[in-house]
Amino acid sequence: MTYFPEVASPIQYAGPDSRDALSFKQYDASAHVGGKTMAEHLRFAVCYWHTMRAGGVDPFGSATMSRPWPLNPETVDEAKQVMDAAFEFLTKLGVGFWCFHDIDIAPEGASRQEYVDNLAAMVDYAAAKQEETGIKLLWGTANLFSHPRYQCGAATSPDPEVFTFAALQVKNALEATNRLGGLGYTFWGGREGYDTLWNTDLKMERENLARLLHMAVEHADKIGFKGQFYIEPKPMEPTRHQYDSDVESCLNFLREFDLMDHLKLNVETNHATLAGHSMQYELQAARTAGALGSIDANTGDELVGWDTDQFPTSIYLTTQIMLELLEMGGFSTGGLNFDAKVRRASHEPIDLFYAHIGGMDAFARGLKVAHAIREDGRLAQFVEDRYSGWNQSLGQGIRNGTASLESCAEHALATEEPQRTSGRQEFLENLINEYM
Amino acid sequence: MTYFPEVASPIQYAGPDSRDALSFKQYDASAHVGGKTMAEHLRFAVCYWHTMRAGGVDPFGSATMSRPWPLNPETVDEAKQVMDAAFEFLTKLGVGFWCFHDIDIAPEGASRQEYVDNLAAMVDYAAAKQEETGIKLLWGTANLFSHPRYQCGAATSPDPEVFTFAALQVKNALEATNRLGGLGYTFWGGREGYDTLWNTDLKMERENLARLLHMAVEHADKIGFKGQFYIEPKPMEPTRHQYDSDVESCLNFLREFDLMDHLKLNVETNHATLAGHSMQYELQAARTAGALGSIDANTGDELVGWDTDQFPTSIYLTTQIMLELLEMGGFSTGGLNFDAKVRRASHEPIDLFYAHIGGMDAFARGLKVAHAIREDGRLAQFVEDRYSGWNQSLGQGIRNGTASLESCAEHALATEEPQRTSGRQEFLENLINEYM
Amino acid sequence: MTYFPEVASPIQYAGPDSRDALSFKQYDASAHVGGKTMAEHLRFAVCYWHTMRAGGVDPFGSATMSRPWPLNPETVDEAKQVMDAAFEFLTKLGVGFWCFHDIDIAPEGASRQEYVDNLAAMVDYAAAKQEETGIKLLWGTANLFSHPRYQCGAATSPDPEVFTFAALQVKNALEATNRLGGLGYTFWGGREGYDTLWNTDLKMERENLARLLHMAVEHADKIGFKGQFYIEPKPMEPTRHQYDSDVESCLNFLREFDLMDHLKLNVETNHATLAGHSMQYELQAARTAGALGSIDANTGDELVGWDTDQFPTSIYLTTQIMLELLEMGGFSTGGLNFDAKVRRASHEPIDLFYAHIGGMDAFARGLKVAHAIREDGRLAQFVEDRYSGWNQSLGQGIRNGTASLESCAEHALATEEPQRTSGRQEFLENLINEYM
Amino acid sequence: MTYFPEVASPIQYAGPDSRDALSFKQYDASAHVGGKTMAEHLRFAVCYWHTMRAGGVDPFGSATMSRPWPLNPETVDEAKQVMDAAFEFLTKLGVGFWCFHDIDIAPEGASRQEYVDNLAAMVDYAAAKQEETGIKLLWGTANLFSHPRYQCGAATSPDPEVFTFAALQVKNALEATNRLGGLGYTFWGGREGYDTLWNTDLKMERENLARLLHMAVEHADKIGFKGQFYIEPKPMEPTRHQYDSDVESCLNFLREFDLMDHLKLNVETNHATLAGHSMQYELQAARTAGALGSIDANTGDELVGWDTDQFPTSIYLTTQIMLELLEMGGFSTGGLNFDAKVRRASHEPIDLFYAHIGGMDAFARGLKVAHAIREDGRLAQFVEDRYSGWNQSLGQGIRNGTASLESCAEHALATEEPQRTSGRQEFLENLINEYM
Repeated sequence: MTYFPEVASPIQYAGPDSRDALSFKQYDASAHVGGKTMAEHLRFAVCYWHTMRAGGVDPFGSATMSRPWPLNPETVDEAKQVMDAAFEFLTKLGVGFWCFHDIDIAPEGASRQEYVDNLAAMVDYAAAKQEETGIKLLWGTANLFSHPRYQCGAATSPDPEVFTFAALQVKNALEATNRLGGLGYTFWGGREGYDTLWNTDLKMERENLARLLHMAVEHADKIGFKGQFYIEPKPMEPTRHQYDSDVESCLNFLREFDLMDHLKLNVETNHATLAGHSMQYELQAARTAGALGSIDANTGDELVGWDTDQFPTSIYLTTQIMLELLEMGGFSTGGLNFDAKVRRASHEPIDLFYAHIGGMDAFARGLKVAHAIREDGRLAQFVEDRYSGWNQSLGQGIRNGTASLESCAEHALATEEPQRTSGRQEFLENLINEYM
Repeated sequence: MTYFPEVASPIQYAGPDSRDALSFKQYDASAHVGGKTMAEHLRFAVCYWHTMRAGGVDPFGSATMSRPWPLNPETVDEAKQVMDAAFEFLTKLGVGFWCFHDIDIAPEGASRQEYVDNLAAMVDYAAAKQEETGIKLLWGTANLFSHPRYQCGAATSPDPEVFTFAALQVKNALEATNRLGGLGYTFWGGREGYDTLWNTDLKMERENLARLLHMAVEHADKIGFKGQFYIEPKPMEPTRHQYDSDVESCLNFLREFDLMDHLKLNVETNHATLAGHSMQYELQAARTAGALGSIDANTGDELVGWDTDQFPTSIYLTTQIMLELLEMGGFSTGGLNFDAKVRRASHEPIDLFYAHIGGMDAFARGLKVAHAIREDGRLAQFVEDRYSGWNQSLGQGIRNGTASLESCAEHALATEEPQRTSGRQEFLENLINEYM
Repeated sequence: MTYFPEVASPIQYAGPDSRDALSFKQYDASAHVGGKTMAEHLRFAVCYWHTMRAGGVDPFGSATMSRPWPLNPETVDEAKQVMDAAFEFLTKLGVGFWCFHDIDIAPEGASRQEYVDNLAAMVDYAAAKQEETGIKLLWGTANLFSHPRYQCGAATSPDPEVFTFAALQVKNALEATNRLGGLGYTFWGGREGYDTLWNTDLKMERENLARLLHMAVEHADKIGFKGQFYIEPKPMEPTRHQYDSDVESCLNFLREFDLMDHLKLNVETNHATLAGHSMQYELQAARTAGALGSIDANTGDELVGWDTDQFPTSIYLTTQIMLELLEMGGFSTGGLNFDAKVRRASHEPIDLFYAHIGGMDAFARGLKVAHAIREDGRLAQFVEDRYSGWNQSLGQGIRNGTASLESCAEHALATEEPQRTSGRQEFLENLINEYM
Repeated sequence: MTYFPEVASPIQYAGPDSRDALSFKQYDASAHVGGKTMAEHLRFAVCYWHTMRAGGVDPFGSATMSRPWPLNPETVDEAKQVMDAAFEFLTKLGVGFWCFHDIDIAPEGASRQEYVDNLAAMVDYAAAKQEETGIKLLWGTANLFSHPRYQCGAATSPDPEVFTFAALQVKNALEATNRLGGLGYTFWGGREGYDTLWNTDLKMERENLARLLHMAVEHADKIGFKGQFYIEPKPMEPTRHQYDSDVESCLNFLREFDLMDHLKLNVETNHATLAGHSMQYELQAARTAGALGSIDANTGDELVGWDTDQFPTSIYLTTQIMLELLEMGGFSTGGLNFDAKVRRASHEPIDLFYAHIGGMDAFARGLKVAHAIREDGRLAQFVEDRYSGWNQSLGQGIRNGTASLESCAEHALATEEPQRTSGRQEFLENLINEYM
């Protein structure tokens, strides 16, 4: 059976002049950009939750999505139909990776044991699918936010019983990820925050969250999981305030609880926006701390206040992201995971193709622009020149600790007012636009 | 000469039924609340910049403030008039503390040497005023953001020459603070951020900022300054994005650069709001990290996006702040500094009294409410009960590290779905309202 | 059968010192405030959708609410159980009014005819309940946003077929409202907006929306419905942007399409906040246009960007609302409808009582404070004095049209710079606080 | 004398491959795009206030701009130097229009009469400059917000004396605009709003604002001014809330006070953003009401909350704007006025060139993209097809008023559930990206 009969064969690169909506206009998987293929640079992943399982429910309306597979599979057989559709989609789209939560791929069942068994069955099925298609698992994770038991948190629940259920899911999801050769495992603390501080022991909750992460790290060791752990910042939604609200609150958390060696960050544009930061900043904050691991490739709407998880199409955004990635030397374990969903009114299966194609083309374009900016070199040169004083003796002394407050003050007293240099923001914005 | 003839004598406590706008209705300095006087609890400070020096300029309009003292003193003599007015105000208002930037109290002069000399002269003058009135310096600081030389940052300037000017000011401001027996010294990084990442070396700028802080700590040691250093979070304005954007980004910064032992945080409501956090959260985040030092007592307007620095009048806000303070056991070196300015249209000197009286009354009320809530005990008991599972064996095992992911998972497999407990947010909000 | 056994009898007024969470501390229905009872002033209504039908689903989690009645009734019998619970709740809470959408009270059924029949049956049942209890219908409405057919709008759908379904629902909901003696009928355009302008004919959509309103007005005439029509502003959510985004966009819409005589506004705090306005402003904008009809009594969280629909507990907010209401002379057809839901973790039925009691007490407190401020008179006097110049000849000439640009300019040329008068914002904020 | 020696001759079009930062890469004034030249389409204007007079002051810092002309001219002679520089800039940049406030071009002087005389002198000087260069006045306006007398509003001041000063300025600015052949006159109500509702008579203030507009309209008639009046929406800043907060509040205001025939809107991107609307929406709301007059060409930062007035460089933004303009058939009296300022750290005169060149290129690019999208026709066709049902009998009956609520309801009862059609948002976003 085919789930996407309207797409006869894998999406092809047809170039920028193509008017075929089911072709790539920018993304040419095997074309080289600076020594690597586009596929190697971009490492696209499709997420199971939005693409296969989301029904289009919103706070004011019921499901709209028309899908030829079961949106809410209740048996392993139904879940296999979803997975068949998923791998057909991945294959026809031509991406190399996927991501999932435990209960995305396996029905929760009526008991914990059913959950464990269903997941095991589906992991076997997925392993076969991976083998068959060559598609890899970018990362796995556990859904610790949908079930009512997590209404007051998972690792941060006031009830230790709930913590153990979270642990059960993390253990199984981690082992599933390991079995599937996953390159990473992600923690996103959907309910790990507070709704009101009046009922909350903030200190204990954060400590308990750290405990779960340490447990997972130890268990990975035990089972031989070599993948990278990630933590994903988000400021709010579903809770009123999450503990890992942005890159720097995550870094603070990791430093405080001695986890910096074990986790990197999975950074998402829409979460950055909600936190009041640009994606460019969040990526730099993570990268310069040596903690940028993977990226959720989506975008939000800057004029609404919730997580719209839209497909990214702005080439300004994708250029900024790709500049950071190229600066970092590319991904090691991470990739660009489309944590994005089609709009509620884009309810036909074909819209899933349009959406992913658009996102992939936008990133391919961003990669080319970013590469061109780097090849050109003027931007990097401008920054280097701007800070060149720090390579001379005064600057070096300050940076290497030989200068003191007193020696600096003496210097200032003895010199003329420094010559000011224009920041040239407009000039630089124009320079970027030359490549758009 | 008197600068405030309309206020004949110090503002008196007249009780809640008073209709005299120049009396305290809630703040009774010597009245006891739970073992300490209100004055001891609240430790109010007046800031020199807004109260004595602000003219009411805004991005669309020129100065409006009518002041019988020179708003922009250019000589030491003029600066002394301002200080006379300041100490008359402090005395008539009946607060125990003040705060200043170096160039608030002393004219910058035409050269660095003049700056140094003017400041020294004014520090002598201030010392005499303090002695005369018994008013103390809560903290001092240096203004590293107004001068054009800081247009691209002070410690984070791309030009090391500019760094040395910042060092000169910090050295002088720190020594002035020490000479005046200041209880603390505050860093607020007005220009320590970026306007555009296109021209910015984020990593170097943050490292240089850390260098300045280390230099200051070392200099304090050298000169015998025993006060507490503070860093003050703010997300944006004047820059597009500051490095110390909220409590957790500050903590991350302090941890990264080994400064946690040397600096605490000075937290401000309006900055919390701009960062997308509640003041209650920011205070708890700082307090539970052992890093809450002092508080800037103001408020913002949650529906506009800039730093309005309004006087705080919401008793919900002041109650939340006072609950945190009482939980911490009160201030050690810190206080409640009114980093707040009268509205641009409140241009008469008497408005300064109305504004501070209102803020002090609001905090006195908050103190009483917070104390009552603590005495009542129901709120604390609710939270204690809610987390009581963590005092039992399952919870203890998780917290002390004897439990593992596996043991937790086994527990979950063997038990029933946990009984859910209501978070009771509405019940608790009502409980708080009982005391308002 | 009883659905709320934990509440044995109607909630009683027990006064501010009561520590019984199931008593009113402020709301004393029959107590007089300035010539009317509290019940007459406040006219509280409970909404059926949040209180009886909401399950606690959010974008990241499934239903949490424990309810002894069917949350999703599929038959008329089940729907009657919900209604029994509703009227038990209304009676025990002691409110005089309720509000509903058509499909809140009646199952949609498998066909349009079933929908019509189910609604008719439930309206009969509701009529009997109303008779039995004396509780009245504040307003009815039709849910034109939940069904997938409305994914691109109801009256503003690109498909006229969908418009007719909206018309079908409005007709039945309007007739149901009429049959139940409803005092009003509300339009809230959940999907009447756009998701992306790329696919939207804005002009036609707004015109079609106006058509539906005119049809409803004409139908009301035909069936003899004498109630008041309302339109409810909201800026966004569920759509990216709704056409009736705030009070003034609604007024513009009503004026443009000649509907000002037929509709007033139903204004909600949380929607005001999302639109970037204070509730105080939105109420004044509506009131001074003669268009304030009814109020949705809830609150939002100013630091998150979505519609939290929380129960209102701030006495500042309720005071501001009650000042507007008293200034208007009170409601004629409208009331205070708690369009508010318990938090997702407040999942027990008793939380519904806590929530409504808290909201009612907050409004009762606001009423008393507002009344006291008006009795005191200083606030009104201040404003009157401030504008007194407009009662003198210069001001009168400007206002009555005898003055011209030239005559004004001549006046200005011939006079001295006007004496500035302080706006006294801080003084006034303190004055308000005297009554809190 | 030359003020911009670094720019030897007018900026030339050098094409997209040029790397000369002082050339146009997209804007070729005389090149045709669909029947009109780029210059005819775009009608760029430079604003006097930001470009000639802004010093770079911000709420935390003093002026930074290095200018070879007097930034704050105090005599007519100094003002003439500024104007010489302005027309040199306009000429070298190659734009056809300028805009000004009365006190931008003429010193306010020490008295009203001096103000009148200075303005008259400078208008004569400007007239000569216009004649000499062929540059035209797009619109004039009066600055009713900077002077302290306007601290509580101009037309909306509580003091009618202040109203007369506003009238004096409007009269002189309007006559100056007329004398200079200005194509329009703009009202922007900087202080026409409130800081706190506690001290405000909202109804009277809005009525008085309408009076000033009517007076201006009548005076224009009297002096034979044939230009177009504009009102400019802005939600906040400098006041806490302005009365003309967005396009729809302006339209409501104009309708309420019978001013729709006399004023159109001058819409600005940054103000749209601050109001929570996209520029695309604001333009459509104005255009479909027949009220789009002119455009302030700038952009804001969506992650900060104040009016950054940045130069527009996003080609997505400029494409959206140009699509609206082309749909409207282009400007009649209006133009694209760069109400934008160089960043505070871009303090050199040459930065003014970079900034304007970048903005002009971005709009030229947007024009080309918009034209291509229209030529292609797929976007318009999609929308036409989507609404095609409204051209058939069911839709026509609804729109022309022959259908009623009843007839629609009957239709719905008799038909099947409508077939849903995807909104295709992602498909359309991709289509737009094809042209970027």
